[in-house]
Amino acid sequence: MSSPTPSKRAKIIQASPIRKLNPLADAAKKRGIEVFHLNIGQPDIPTPPDYWEAMKSRIPEVLAYGPSQGIPELRAAISGYYKRLGLDILPSQVMITTGGSEAVIFAMMVTCDDGDDILCFEPFYTNYNGFATMAGVNLVPIISRVEDGFHLPPDELILSALTPRTKAILICNPNNPTGTVLREDEVRRLAGICESRGLFLLADEVYRDFTFDGRTHFSVLELPSIADRAIVMDSISKRFSSCGARLGNVIARNEEVMEGLNRFGQARLCPPTLAQYGAAYMYEHLSAEYFKLVSDTYESRRNVLVEQLEGTPGVFFLKPEGAFYATMRIPVDDGDSFASWMLRDFSTGGRTTMVAPAAGFYATEGLGRDEIRIAYVLKEERMMTALSVLREGLAKYPGRKG
Amino acid sequence: MSSPTPSKRAKIIQASPIRKLNPLADAAKKRGIEVFHLNIGQPDIPTPPDYWEAMKSRIPEVLAYGPSQGIPELRAAISGYYKRLGLDILPSQVMITTGGSEAVIFAMMVTCDDGDDILCFEPFYTNYNGFATMAGVNLVPIISRVEDGFHLPPDELILSALTPRTKAILICNPNNPTGTVLREDEVRRLAGICESRGLFLLADEVYRDFTFDGRTHFSVLELPSIADRAIVMDSISKRFSSCGARLGNVIARNEEVMEGLNRFGQARLCPPTLAQYGAAYMYEHLSAEYFKLVSDTYESRRNVLVEQLEGTPGVFFLKPEGAFYATMRIPVDDGDSFASWMLRDFSTGGRTTMVAPAAGFYATEGLGRDEIRIAYVLKEERMMTALSVLREGLAKYPGRKG
Repeated sequence: MSSPTPSKRAKIIQASPIRKLNPLADAAKKRGIEVFHLNIGQPDIPTPPDYWEAMKSRIPEVLAYGPSQGIPELRAAISGYYKRLGLDILPSQVMITTGGSEAVIFAMMVTCDDGDDILCFEPFYTNYNGFATMAGVNLVPIISRVEDGFHLPPDELILSALTPRTKAILICNPNNPTGTVLREDEVRRLAGICESRGLFLLADEVYRDFTFDGRTHFSVLELPSIADRAIVMDSISKRFSSCGARLGNVIARNEEVMEGLNRFGQARLCPPTLAQYGAAYMYEHLSAEYFKLVSDTYESRRNVLVEQLEGTPGVFFLKPEGAFYATMRIPVDDGDSFASWMLRDFSTGGRTTMVAPAAGFYATEGLGRDEIRIAYVLKEERMMTALSVLREGLAKYPGRKG
Repeated sequence: MSSPTPSKRAKIIQASPIRKLNPLADAAKKRGIEVFHLNIGQPDIPTPPDYWEAMKSRIPEVLAYGPSQGIPELRAAISGYYKRLGLDILPSQVMITTGGSEAVIFAMMVTCDDGDDILCFEPFYTNYNGFATMAGVNLVPIISRVEDGFHLPPDELILSALTPRTKAILICNPNNPTGTVLREDEVRRLAGICESRGLFLLADEVYRDFTFDGRTHFSVLELPSIADRAIVMDSISKRFSSCGARLGNVIARNEEVMEGLNRFGQARLCPPTLAQYGAAYMYEHLSAEYFKLVSDTYESRRNVLVEQLEGTPGVFFLKPEGAFYATMRIPVDDGDSFASWMLRDFSTGGRTTMVAPAAGFYATEGLGRDEIRIAYVLKEERMMTALSVLREGLAKYPGRKG
């Protein structure tokens, strides 16, 4: 008999628009070209040395399984982090996950069965697509527009997208890939819709510490009226520049939800054990100054981005408000071809810049093809060079419009 | 409106029979009772110190994301491990996962869509249940019996369980929870069925290095005729006593399968970065002597188990052949009640023994209720004490049969 074929989900799952051009980048590097990575949210900020010290001090004789929900020290430390922010979150309402990734897929699976819908605003973090495919969930996209700075569309538009199978609304705030920070009134609007329609509100708040121009982040955890339906997904990856640790968490006050999450957690046994001691140390000991310093760093990089690209002919975006991303319209028909061309055919002074085509951040076919996402994760000087290389590429691109 | 309710899968997912009695064990410990943990496959063998050294030598400035498929060094090291075993596995045919857990759920999802069937032999590793629920896959169980040493039932029985939606047969070899090692002829029988019926053969070979009494393990990777349909799930947890590292791998020679796996992997970004350097070091540098030493250790513990329990009135099992588990019939109606009683109501000399009720390792309701699983993961002397405590508990249990 012929070879068996993989599942449909294995075939339809999206290739990451952030990573799929990596082979072209590798080839460029082999040709001796320096590639500026603005395609991926990999910060260059050093992981706090305390993290390593805390970990090394806990090296055990046997690297054993830990508790499924995470070690008590880390759950307590996260509870303490929220307490300092004025939010009451019990350790039992915190479950440690293997990266924010697992937090997202667990949140999808705890709210949805195969064929259920989650409403989300596009463009959205592209990996939501992959998780949804794996979990059998339909992401129902509602467009947010670059002209509005990717803020929420009117209620009517949101309500019109609800179906009998809609189980949740999913937001990322501050937003990847747009850098938009939802205002309190926007979060309250969504909470109201979730309350009146019996939906969960899933909030990816991974970038909560990075808000600019004096903005503060308004968490879904601040609204007691949705305590039973708010689920927060978080991660230490960006907060402590430790993406490779693979530690995140999911927070829910709804006991039934937490029980389901715990059972998902039991099935996969536990998150990485030792790194949790390092994470607990950072949550406990890193001061408000550390958070401010990191946020200010991204803010000044954001400023470099705006200075370098604002006014570039054909380029349009509003000033990003938080996180470390911007999604912008560029004067091309197909961001995918442009990003590939930058790696394959373009270089200036032995350098080129890698960006993420934005189409992969949309669920609606055809949208975002003239947009790219930029992660401003390099030091200011390198950012300046990377962006001037990008500008030059845009000017020289044969497929340039207008 | 009332609170939204979690998904069906969150409600039906099984609580781990290995971990669900933990609160009772914790309570016993609070009362000052020493609990021997024979309930969980957590080895007491020290993690090789080289692991820590290799990791520490690679501490980076920024703990960054790694490649989705795992770092090249580790994939090459695993390829080398197989080469030494006489098997040709290319690094590109190895994908690093976050624990064997992720290897299993990825293997299920790459072969099955929601509602598809996987045939497996019960009792089976209980967490397959959880993964199947999460992935929307039905595990179709076929009974293997303690009287047969849990070896394969006849082909007719296997064939009669196939449905139009069966996509794969799943085995664990050497077996958790039974300790059975499939013979070459059994693996060939399954391969033949998979070939003739167009099925994948998923093999959890986590315990492949632990086989006793001169047995050798016969891998599904040894049969070129099923190269397109064999998928191996593995882990460093038991091999290198590093359960808390959360590193496993999945091996497939079918390119379409590997492509699907890679995309699942891209969605969750990467497995833990730093631990992979430690794992690569161990795969490269630990000698055949290390593997033999560990296997011999478990073999002599197995011998202790047999000596201590064989002939105990009402207890029945055949000599386990590998891994470090045994599933045995005991003279009680309900292993769950017995295991709870041991923790809640019994102790002798301030000590009690925790076992895993076997019913949770069966998918068929009602099966395995008079069985328990024992993990022989303690040093011989402690094993002896733990088992004598267990024997005493069995003798004194008020619910004892006959």
